Amino acid sequence: MRRFLIAIAALFLLVGCNSNTKYHMVDGTIVYDVPKRAAGQQDMIAFAAEPMESVRVGFIGLGMRGPGAVRRWCQIEGTEIIALCDINQQGIDKSQKYLSNAGRNKAVEYLGEESWRELCEREDIDLVYIMTDWKNHANMALYAMECGKHVAIEVPAAMTMDEIWALIDTSERTRKHCIQLENCVYDRFEITALNMAQQGLFGEILHVEGAYIHCLDEFWDKYYNNWRLDYNREYRGDVYPTHGIGPVCQVLNIHRGDRMKTLVAMDTKAVSGAQYWQNMKAEPCENFANGDQTTTLIRTEKGKVIQLHHNVMTPRPYSRDYTLVGTTGYAAKYPVQSILLGRQTVGEVDIENLNSHRCVSDSVRKALMEKYKHPVTAHTEVMAAKVGGHGGMDYTMDYRLVYCLRNGLPLDMDVYDLAEWCCPIELSAVSIKHNSAPVAVPDFTRGGWQKLSGYKHYWAE
Amino acid sequence: MRRFLIAIAALFLLVGCNSNTKYHMVDGTIVYDVPKRAAGQQDMIAFAAEPMESVRVGFIGLGMRGPGAVRRWCQIEGTEIIALCDINQQGIDKSQKYLSNAGRNKAVEYLGEESWRELCEREDIDLVYIMTDWKNHANMALYAMECGKHVAIEVPAAMTMDEIWALIDTSERTRKHCIQLENCVYDRFEITALNMAQQGLFGEILHVEGAYIHCLDEFWDKYYNNWRLDYNREYRGDVYPTHGIGPVCQVLNIHRGDRMKTLVAMDTKAVSGAQYWQNMKAEPCENFANGDQTTTLIRTEKGKVIQLHHNVMTPRPYSRDYTLVGTTGYAAKYPVQSILLGRQTVGEVDIENLNSHRCVSDSVRKALMEKYKHPVTAHTEVMAAKVGGHGGMDYTMDYRLVYCLRNGLPLDMDVYDLAEWCCPIELSAVSIKHNSAPVAVPDFTRGGWQKLSGYKHYWAE
Repeated sequence: MRRFLIAIAALFLLVGCNSNTKYHMVDGTIVYDVPKRAAGQQDMIAFAAEPMESVRVGFIGLGMRGPGAVRRWCQIEGTEIIALCDINQQGIDKSQKYLSNAGRNKAVEYLGEESWRELCEREDIDLVYIMTDWKNHANMALYAMECGKHVAIEVPAAMTMDEIWALIDTSERTRKHCIQLENCVYDRFEITALNMAQQGLFGEILHVEGAYIHCLDEFWDKYYNNWRLDYNREYRGDVYPTHGIGPVCQVLNIHRGDRMKTLVAMDTKAVSGAQYWQNMKAEPCENFANGDQTTTLIRTEKGKVIQLHHNVMTPRPYSRDYTLVGTTGYAAKYPVQSILLGRQTVGEVDIENLNSHRCVSDSVRKALMEKYKHPVTAHTEVMAAKVGGHGGMDYTMDYRLVYCLRNGLPLDMDVYDLAEWCCPIELSAVSIKHNSAPVAVPDFTRGGWQKLSGYKHYWAE
Repeated sequence: MRRFLIAIAALFLLVGCNSNTKYHMVDGTIVYDVPKRAAGQQDMIAFAAEPMESVRVGFIGLGMRGPGAVRRWCQIEGTEIIALCDINQQGIDKSQKYLSNAGRNKAVEYLGEESWRELCEREDIDLVYIMTDWKNHANMALYAMECGKHVAIEVPAAMTMDEIWALIDTSERTRKHCIQLENCVYDRFEITALNMAQQGLFGEILHVEGAYIHCLDEFWDKYYNNWRLDYNREYRGDVYPTHGIGPVCQVLNIHRGDRMKTLVAMDTKAVSGAQYWQNMKAEPCENFANGDQTTTLIRTEKGKVIQLHHNVMTPRPYSRDYTLVGTTGYAAKYPVQSILLGRQTVGEVDIENLNSHRCVSDSVRKALMEKYKHPVTAHTEVMAAKVGGHGGMDYTMDYRLVYCLRNGLPLDMDVYDLAEWCCPIELSAVSIKHNSAPVAVPDFTRGGWQKLSGYKHYWAE
């Protein structure tokens, strides 16, 4: 009976998901309808669940990213890996091997297209960890929350405004954490620069940049059933913004005192994706949607600007950009780590010498990186280096999730971060569709963006 | 009598300049009125004047940039420096010294606020070279053309759409060259990368970036009467776009087969300018207009995107960005020169290794820079290194101007380049004023942007 009721509830939500959140144009700006919060429903700002002795987790999706997550979780104390789900046995087997190597109990297996529901319905799981293709993220998370589970979802967790609002409403109603597994906020440079920013080293930060620039030529054929290239073929816009926008939103205290207000986007024509498709399928590809490079600009309520780039198509050096421009300093990660502090010039002013503001030397930068090491890094770096996963940031992400759950703390990321970091997907496409028209970014907190003042990581006593 | 008639004509133009070119919103896009070309008036595309044995020049504005130009011209064969004009005797004296050091004749002097008109009216001058503050550029150029002179104007040559259209119409009607002194198109990396692009090394170039990022803390008090900070105080938008946009427009063949179509802009709030003003004036500054950083995006008819940054306010390493993103290659100048060629990856594909596309090594890059040395560089590099001026690019710019005039060739830049490279000043401000709304960039050639196919430098036989 319980399963039947959940299925009905999920069906209702899915129908909601397939409808389109409406927008209209007001004085040249595209404005979206904001669904009303149900009477009595509370926001999830600084939400903390009851502490749990151990975090019992089920993993869905054991393809590219999945087995690595299982391997990392084996190294985290206070976790029980209860269940594994995939459409292929191979990923399950690989993950079971990690468990047995680590001396962990064998996990229950769920194989097949629909078996993830059964995993969600188990009574002995606290958290569902979702690493499937993009299109399944939100639906699975909704069902898991309806089943009383917290959810952690690979990026992007939601591809449409419908999915975003469904996740927010379901998280608020069920009082379950719903977060995105954004690892880049834990990368060494980003999290150290965040600490520097919070300590005021850069003055007031006014302009920030993030990007996902990663030529996927060698990756396209590794996604199950070609889902990623299919997605890019179907949709324009920045379809993968979270690695770029996540770290800079933390710096700007988004929905902790500021909020994203206006977004515009512009893309190049689509050349490389169509070419790749043609080579792969040996048939013409006339309607490839996603441009080779997409640029998105977002202005905040407090007059800051976020710039995002998306390019997975043309050969460029990998970059997430990560640039902070403040009134008294500057930091940038790519192509070389750079930090500039203070307004003093170097040497005499000379009209012929345009380089009067210089970054600190390599040795000074390294000393600063050590001095401003983030407490999260200090707490996890030994294990992170040992366990690895994109240089340790994946482990740190998992560790912090478990740490906060076990200690009954608000998580480092919440459902509004998820919403804000995913919304450029639909909003950039809509802006582009309307000749780069401005789009009013909804307030996903529905009035709560000033409740907290500043972004913070929570710690147990 | 002639002077009287010219004064009347100039007055008429100035009245035109002070009116506002009108725009209206069509389906969310801001569309400007385009003044009709007068019956019988021809465009200036590939315009060449009669060859001249020697270029007789008068300089207006001998403050920061002026004396350096006089010094460089002394080193160029086939030039006669006839007249010097400034509001201060000091710049004139400095320039006369350069002339006498070079064994040149003493120039005629024009001192005072209005004396530039007399310089323009001389019968023995072919070219008026204008290096005053921004607000005087266009008016002086208009008057000089009415006096039958070619004009070369420091950047930006025009600050408003009115000025742009007045310059275009006057150039077309008087059949006089009207160009902007954009030096950065001659800088070594930019012009070499242009050559590489034209030879197809980067495939189809889809996304380009340019910028003017130069903290002017030490420069603000060096502009006569505080004109530059005043300008920034009064106007929002990218008020200094030409160094960034010029080089990338040449790569994209703007008005030689493609044209800028849609522009959007977004700025941060203004913090540093107001702070500087307050410190300088010791009085509060409440209405400082220009944001610390302004970003502009422009899409072309052929689906390419130009990104521009303007930041003269916060401490950052100097950068003009200059990034070319093509289907088979990539070039970027800042913070380190980078070139990437081909779609092949380096080493094995590894999900943990995101740096699969790498730039060529320093030695390969240097070899490429030599192999693809632009003919203009090859032609001028010895003298450019000797004469200097921003690493030689200023000399190269002056040399090419004289070379093309003496040989009766189209110049490297024309009045439509001037228009295109200056239009972001007003258009970015208008976009920002309307919540970053898209602006339709007028076709300044009024139908002629496909007459030429590809950007080229002209050479005598």
